[in-house]
Amino acid sequence: EIVAGIEAVLGDGPLKGRHVIVTSGPTHEPIDPVRYIANRSSGAQGTALARALRDLGARVTFVTGPAAVPPPGGVEVVAVQTAVEMRDAVTAALPADAAVFAAAVADWHVVNASGSKMKKDGSGKSPELDFAENPDILATVASMKKGRPKLVVGFAAETDDVQAHAEAKRARKKCDWIVANDVTPATGIMGGTENAVTLITGNGAEEWPRLPKDEVARRLAVRIAESLV
Amino acid sequence: EIVAGIEAVLGDGPLKGRHVIVTSGPTHEPIDPVRYIANRSSGAQGTALARALRDLGARVTFVTGPAAVPPPGGVEVVAVQTAVEMRDAVTAALPADAAVFAAAVADWHVVNASGSKMKKDGSGKSPELDFAENPDILATVASMKKGRPKLVVGFAAETDDVQAHAEAKRARKKCDWIVANDVTPATGIMGGTENAVTLITGNGAEEWPRLPKDEVARRLAVRIAESLV
Repeated sequence: EIVAGIEAVLGDGPLKGRHVIVTSGPTHEPIDPVRYIANRSSGAQGTALARALRDLGARVTFVTGPAAVPPPGGVEVVAVQTAVEMRDAVTAALPADAAVFAAAVADWHVVNASGSKMKKDGSGKSPELDFAENPDILATVASMKKGRPKLVVGFAAETDDVQAHAEAKRARKKCDWIVANDVTPATGIMGGTENAVTLITGNGAEEWPRLPKDEVARRLAVRIAESLV
Repeated sequence: EIVAGIEAVLGDGPLKGRHVIVTSGPTHEPIDPVRYIANRSSGAQGTALARALRDLGARVTFVTGPAAVPPPGGVEVVAVQTAVEMRDAVTAALPADAAVFAAAVADWHVVNASGSKMKKDGSGKSPELDFAENPDILATVASMKKGRPKLVVGFAAETDDVQAHAEAKRARKKCDWIVANDVTPATGIMGGTENAVTLITGNGAEEWPRLPKDEVARRLAVRIAESLV
């Protein structure tokens, strides 16, 4: 892994001299000092993608939430917890030639998060959590008037009507590509080692076969390299 | 680890022939297929305790939520996600000589959890989560009229006024001991390798020095063995 990282940095891959930002993993949104809202992203696909881009010679800034898998070597790791922290880390890492948003960012955070542990008070009263929308990192970067990365790629984790939702997301977010996958628990994809993606570009939808996440990452990295030529 | 487990089973520790239930780790309470509410418990203290009890010869049923550390060898592992599943696993594992509830069980679950992924609908409207209290596993077992384990031990993770809260909890839950610790983020205890506990028994409060979680586990296991003589 370390050798691969060094080779990539010294090597002459098609992404040599290119800077790519990859986000990965879940975000954790605090409820109180011990509780938080999480999601089932393991960070496996984003981590594999960062590794594959590194192997093609890219300089990679890897902005990762609390993932279950360790980050790859030979990339710049920026560890964050919340969506707001992730947005700030991405903004700080710009400019970039490409930005790939593979993280499963929480859509909401808890506005009235408590500074001390919430307790049952015996009244049977339940907590009332007030939510506010998190910054939309993908849309923010994809809509930049100045300094927008040439290629902006989003991920869509869907549980139904995957392609239609993903195409709508691509249009709404103004990003170049969407990598869509079906995270219905029965597929075993979220947290698993394989992925079945549909790549949505300006030219339509390509359905890829179910493949190991490493292989999905390699194919995506090659496509990213081709798009930056 | 495996050898230690076999030795314990074959050996003649003070807990030989005793059955101890240990719960450990966080619980995860679903919001929708990809989101859940979690807490920062790593399962390290409960896992160390199960190992220490095994090393003293106990037969251990280890009921664990999705923990960051692997379960010990030589114990019966029952893996669960939610508080309700944990309660059911504990009930199924009874009778026991002792039950130690080291898990950080969620106090609430989401009643209106969604079968498909919740989406931002563009209206700026935030989700409304309705909560209901989870079963109180510690109080349930401690209050058993028939078949109550001789020793019932709870844990209290507090962020302020640790001893007072823990003593109140011991009285309220009708358990024999409370192992209280301060999980204020600044202590680094939750998710860390050390613990500073106060043991609350019918004889008052003992403040233990800050120790590795393995050592806290060994001392607790010895005390549990003594109490079952």
